[in-house]
Amino acid sequence: MTTQLTANEQVQDVLEALQGKAIKNVLFVACGGSSALMYPSKYLLDREAETIESDLYSSNEFIHRNPVKLGKDSLVILCSMEGKTPETVKAVSFAKSKGATTVALTHKLGSPLTADADFVLRYDWGKESNAINSNYSFMYQLVMGLLSVYEGKNEDYQKLLSGLDQLQTIYDRTREQFKEKAEQFSKEYKDEKVIYTVASGVNYGIAYSFAICILMEMQWIHSHAIHAGEYFHGPFEIIDKNVPFLILLGLDETRPLEERALKFSSEYGEKLVVLDAKDFDLNEIDETVKKYIAPLVLNDVLRLYAEKLADERNHPLSTRRYMWKVDY
Amino acid sequence: MTTQLTANEQVQDVLEALQGKAIKNVLFVACGGSSALMYPSKYLLDREAETIESDLYSSNEFIHRNPVKLGKDSLVILCSMEGKTPETVKAVSFAKSKGATTVALTHKLGSPLTADADFVLRYDWGKESNAINSNYSFMYQLVMGLLSVYEGKNEDYQKLLSGLDQLQTIYDRTREQFKEKAEQFSKEYKDEKVIYTVASGVNYGIAYSFAICILMEMQWIHSHAIHAGEYFHGPFEIIDKNVPFLILLGLDETRPLEERALKFSSEYGEKLVVLDAKDFDLNEIDETVKKYIAPLVLNDVLRLYAEKLADERNHPLSTRRYMWKVDY
Repeated sequence: MTTQLTANEQVQDVLEALQGKAIKNVLFVACGGSSALMYPSKYLLDREAETIESDLYSSNEFIHRNPVKLGKDSLVILCSMEGKTPETVKAVSFAKSKGATTVALTHKLGSPLTADADFVLRYDWGKESNAINSNYSFMYQLVMGLLSVYEGKNEDYQKLLSGLDQLQTIYDRTREQFKEKAEQFSKEYKDEKVIYTVASGVNYGIAYSFAICILMEMQWIHSHAIHAGEYFHGPFEIIDKNVPFLILLGLDETRPLEERALKFSSEYGEKLVVLDAKDFDLNEIDETVKKYIAPLVLNDVLRLYAEKLADERNHPLSTRRYMWKVDY
Repeated sequence: MTTQLTANEQVQDVLEALQGKAIKNVLFVACGGSSALMYPSKYLLDREAETIESDLYSSNEFIHRNPVKLGKDSLVILCSMEGKTPETVKAVSFAKSKGATTVALTHKLGSPLTADADFVLRYDWGKESNAINSNYSFMYQLVMGLLSVYEGKNEDYQKLLSGLDQLQTIYDRTREQFKEKAEQFSKEYKDEKVIYTVASGVNYGIAYSFAICILMEMQWIHSHAIHAGEYFHGPFEIIDKNVPFLILLGLDETRPLEERALKFSSEYGEKLVVLDAKDFDLNEIDETVKKYIAPLVLNDVLRLYAEKLADERNHPLSTRRYMWKVDY
């Protein structure tokens, strides 16, 4: 007899409430880092979903583009940490006005984002929280849970739930493993004016998040997340021995693209920071879902890199000149 | 009695051959600039297509991600100027192996891209060609043609065909109008080390193309195409009076996003290059399709900006250090 794992109670409630409801497409709608954390779920649906189409939009693009496919058979998943992002709050009522069902992820219960949403998932955040209850984890529980409900993919769902249950242990262990490397990175790269990031597949959102949220927003360092497949069709002409590249290697099907980008960059660049998920100890995770866990661990290690970089540059990650300070 | 316009003969042949075939989704597959020129068509399908889903992938991501939705009811549209891009050539046979129908756009008949494709569209390119037979024009003729065939949207199709017929006239007139501005841009920005580009909606691909193909590839200037909606969720912290931003304003539904990015940038930045499609004379174009023509004109004007910049920097647009020169 096998014990069946279930998702977090909140996610489980959504999945049960959706039983029997037709879902033609899932639309991921958020801004910045909250959008980036949905990229792995879009990849997962592309790989696994046989009956559900999916797409991903920045919140205001979603509202103004007003895709025709948005309708009563749409499930719109939105996210905002504080639940106050005006575009994402507006996207909830917009989606509902088209008859769609909405699931809002936020850290703050009672925030504006939660007012109109059909379902609210309140995730944990911060040093004391457990990764099983993080935004990334809730996203996977929700989308893989949908495939379990709608397409009978319970086996993979069980493997993923079991993996997510071990996520905090893996985070803690991997942070310890990469502490020295993160310090070395911060010392070597603290004076750089531009740092590119590169990834593909399920990891691309992690590279995007590090580029726009950590480097540009929190450190005022020029950046651009280059898709590893696009690299060879323009962007690679920028590399030389003085231009820093942070290259991620995951465990998903697109790893050959990232390896190719690394191979070329190693030949013509000299300032390379490489984070390879093969160096992570993921022994608790079932082989078939390691690829989905890898970007989450890459992201957590990168947070450590960011913290060390901020310390070394005396530029705290909380420093802003415009965000929350001026009108925009 | 109204005369019915028809697409270019080659496109017309594809549309006629497709009559009666089920199409569940259209997948846009290419790399770099050839991928960027498909973004407007993805926007158009999102806005207009009621029965056809769509998605866009860089060629190698497409092959390795191997989306489940790729199948016998998929129409895969691919593009490569010289028809030799290995990933895109491989994507044709990959798509066919899944039962999909393939349409390959290329400037070179007989190139590897054309070998396995079900349909080939040979577009014109270069100074002597007419814009009606360009890659951008063929893309619109094809996707709007599909909506005419599959969803009876002949009225909009006629308006778009009529507009494309005037495209060369508009290009010529607008280049003349922007000659001085392009020269001024090249003088003012020739020594910049980084230039960001910003756009949204139907114009985003144009900003992406200018960032990765012109600035990074052809001029070795750091760049990153920032989505105007994402700008306020990280990237905007990078702007100050010394950081150059090229901001595009189009005529589509997402213009408010671009206007907001411009308003903020005008307040905190001083090096702004603004290209506003409202300044174009598009009097030949029907009001309802102007938004789709605008990005094509923006792109052509930006080519002029690129040419002037290359002259001023004594760095020809054809200069490469890696592309076509080394193994990658």
